[in-house]
Amino acid sequence: MAAGLQRPQAAAACLLLLRYLSCGLCIPDPKLREALIKQEISMQTGGQVVLTDAEQRLDSVLFKMKQKEMMRPDFPPAMHFFKARELIKTSPIFSLLQKMPKGAALHVHDLSMVNAEWLVKNATYRPHCYMCYTDSNSIRFNFSSQAPEKQLNCSPWILLESLRAKLINTTDLDNSIMGNLTLFTNQDPETVYPSQEVVWDKFEKAFQAMWGLFTYAPVFRDYYYQGLTEFYTDNVMYLELRAVLPEIYELDGSCHCVAWTVKTYQEVTRQFKKDHPDFYGARIIFSHNRNASPSKMTEIVQKALKLQQDFPIFMAGFDLVGREDTGRPLWYFRDALSLPGDKGMTLPFFFHAGETNLEGTDVDQNLLDALLFNTSRIGHGFALLRHPLVKYKSRIEGVAVEVCPISNQVMKLVKDLRNHPAAALMSENHPVVISSDDPSMFGSSGLSYDFYEAFVGFGGLRANIGTLKELAKNSIRYSSLTPKQQKEAFALWQKKWDKFVSENAF
Amino acid sequence: MAAGLQRPQAAAACLLLLRYLSCGLCIPDPKLREALIKQEISMQTGGQVVLTDAEQRLDSVLFKMKQKEMMRPDFPPAMHFFKARELIKTSPIFSLLQKMPKGAALHVHDLSMVNAEWLVKNATYRPHCYMCYTDSNSIRFNFSSQAPEKQLNCSPWILLESLRAKLINTTDLDNSIMGNLTLFTNQDPETVYPSQEVVWDKFEKAFQAMWGLFTYAPVFRDYYYQGLTEFYTDNVMYLELRAVLPEIYELDGSCHCVAWTVKTYQEVTRQFKKDHPDFYGARIIFSHNRNASPSKMTEIVQKALKLQQDFPIFMAGFDLVGREDTGRPLWYFRDALSLPGDKGMTLPFFFHAGETNLEGTDVDQNLLDALLFNTSRIGHGFALLRHPLVKYKSRIEGVAVEVCPISNQVMKLVKDLRNHPAAALMSENHPVVISSDDPSMFGSSGLSYDFYEAFVGFGGLRANIGTLKELAKNSIRYSSLTPKQQKEAFALWQKKWDKFVSENAF
Repeated sequence: MAAGLQRPQAAAACLLLLRYLSCGLCIPDPKLREALIKQEISMQTGGQVVLTDAEQRLDSVLFKMKQKEMMRPDFPPAMHFFKARELIKTSPIFSLLQKMPKGAALHVHDLSMVNAEWLVKNATYRPHCYMCYTDSNSIRFNFSSQAPEKQLNCSPWILLESLRAKLINTTDLDNSIMGNLTLFTNQDPETVYPSQEVVWDKFEKAFQAMWGLFTYAPVFRDYYYQGLTEFYTDNVMYLELRAVLPEIYELDGSCHCVAWTVKTYQEVTRQFKKDHPDFYGARIIFSHNRNASPSKMTEIVQKALKLQQDFPIFMAGFDLVGREDTGRPLWYFRDALSLPGDKGMTLPFFFHAGETNLEGTDVDQNLLDALLFNTSRIGHGFALLRHPLVKYKSRIEGVAVEVCPISNQVMKLVKDLRNHPAAALMSENHPVVISSDDPSMFGSSGLSYDFYEAFVGFGGLRANIGTLKELAKNSIRYSSLTPKQQKEAFALWQKKWDKFVSENAF
Repeated sequence: MAAGLQRPQAAAACLLLLRYLSCGLCIPDPKLREALIKQEISMQTGGQVVLTDAEQRLDSVLFKMKQKEMMRPDFPPAMHFFKARELIKTSPIFSLLQKMPKGAALHVHDLSMVNAEWLVKNATYRPHCYMCYTDSNSIRFNFSSQAPEKQLNCSPWILLESLRAKLINTTDLDNSIMGNLTLFTNQDPETVYPSQEVVWDKFEKAFQAMWGLFTYAPVFRDYYYQGLTEFYTDNVMYLELRAVLPEIYELDGSCHCVAWTVKTYQEVTRQFKKDHPDFYGARIIFSHNRNASPSKMTEIVQKALKLQQDFPIFMAGFDLVGREDTGRPLWYFRDALSLPGDKGMTLPFFFHAGETNLEGTDVDQNLLDALLFNTSRIGHGFALLRHPLVKYKSRIEGVAVEVCPISNQVMKLVKDLRNHPAAALMSENHPVVISSDDPSMFGSSGLSYDFYEAFVGFGGLRANIGTLKELAKNSIRYSSLTPKQQKEAFALWQKKWDKFVSENAF
């Protein structure tokens, strides 16, 4: 569908260019120049959107804001997000983007939906919360009705309730806990995270640290509800969540199986929809670490197939997660990943691919392999510009790239976001959606910060209200929802959009 | 011609892809996958080059070197060149690239061909060399038979000969002078140059500082001869030099006109060719600062037309130079730039365009305007990926992009060179040539450092000996030489290439 949409546009560009070329060495005609500039703008994401009067008025407001923003010497998209966040918060463009109905978040991970402060202030303040310090400078949590057994390479367990009772001021402790649950820091991020190795190490440690909080049944439910709340508050109406679907434990140490985890996600989603009727819902993309053995991966895919059968409406599909550069490439798991096809069963794939700068290595083939395995979308696709054949295929097949600007910057793939490959992709209306990956890890929340980076950083002065509208629509168009569901979701979104435009166009 | 070359390649890619697409949801066939990988590699710069046996052997050597290089935690293209230079110097790939006949340098500026040390050790050690310190923390030079008049905003003139005679050790003085003539520093470049404003300020000051040295007739001749020597030693056989063509002065204060400057360039080039018969030569692209008034620009274009008439063989054409972001856009000078066309005269343009991250601004239209004014090549073209229509036009018309990796990094357009847009351009064999812009300013020399960044940084593991061969050939193909001259130059280059391959393929 997406490819079809772009054909007339490409044809128009060709015609205009041919007209130009045929004039040979003539002096540039200002009208032709103007037409070519407009033509190029019309090629960008949302360049074909026909704006209503109100949208045009809002666009003028946005354009003026953007002009001001681009003249700042401290231009936020050129800076590390940790330094830029406070500047972005005060930007009038950002305020508008927060209010804007952004559609769906299609690339978000289960363990980093909710800001770290909530975890500290809410989760760790519950009774029976034990914490220990690991030898490798991290922490672990465990909720237990009695003191748990000491873990290897860890200090004895400390009951946080008792520890806090002894302290006059718990701020330092709470801040120190929080520092273990997020990458965000007020210190200079380049100094704290000098390399990809260091930042990935801290990233993985933060997930390990919050594991004992997240997998405790009462926290698990509330965390997910709070996660939906944060996205809903940020005017996101639908989510597709990469979920590792762990076993969830209770205070007495007993465990729930994976189906329970899915069911709980489904129940909490239903409850949230009930509490917020204008929220459309969520689906789960079961995700497993890419460092499994081939036989383990076969098991995992079988498990995924079973879940897909048992929860055909709530499960969206399957993905592999973890650092690509040090992980196993997709092709390594070709037998396991061929299982659904071999069995004639359906398991939609949503593969991370191309989150790398290691051009030409085995890992760098993930992009091609993701498409060969018929992935529904590409997670990140940072390396896509260096793969012209894959890029062409993703475009004509409408396989959208889930672009996560802040994540790619914090994880040190790119420094100045104006150089992010999605700037080029958006300039030619390549199918993309904007997402936030792990907002709590990066000190962001919802989608607005990433929309800001995309709109101001990737789009420069040229991206306009049409771009924003198309990005929001893309998030529904490229979701895993059925055509009927998409129709519903579009209708719901359109209502919100019209309200947003009428309230903000002066 | 370039567009024609690429057509069969594009057709082959399409066919292969259609074959793939027609198989629908089938399990990936390893042979088809292999074919697609090969197909994508064949789309890159040099991907269609058929290698001789010896070239294939050299390629194997290079591939092994590259594998090692890419496993380094301190991967040079990901680092600032000032920090990476020492690492590159010890790289076996770099040694090979130094020996490789690289063809032509098509984007080099007259005032930064020669390493700053030569200026200090040679130029400033000549008799009658006066220096003063400016109020804005820079220096000025003046050769004069008697003490020149004091300049505004400058200390009294100091005769360097006398000053040095008084010093026990001149190292500190010489180093301090050198620091004024180059951006290169051993300190942390991010700290010394925190922003584009700071680095451009220092850049412009360095040109002002060396002006009095460069424009002194005896130094001028020797500087250019030394510049040719440095490129020749780096196995570059032909240059197209952006030259501001200043008036040149003598010791008695008398001045030569611009025609003399061109003639001197021509004479020195002839002398150099006589001394080095395997050097092909040089041509001049007259360049003027883009901050002129429209009427001044009209004068300048008329001057350029006159020079082009008077030196039709030695003059290649015309360009505007200086920082694009703060300078006037090409369209501002549309009347002046239309003069040659209006008069039915020939003045080939070689415009700098797209050396910017300010997407959507007036300056960002330079890329389109350069092409509308029928530029022969694009200088830098850093913003090209964000201009799909311009990119398409530059490709089908074979308007090559002069890519200067180290320059773009030092001038803070991009940090990690793997994210340089030319990586994408080279992956699809967009017409590009590699050049070094202002090697002396960046502490590099000749072309080898920039070839290293392009080959290792842009190309990753996939760029191979075919890529290098094609880049060298591109530099002749996209030069301003006539078809007959190109034939000669190719023959000369091929002889050097065959020797290089036979001496290094084991």
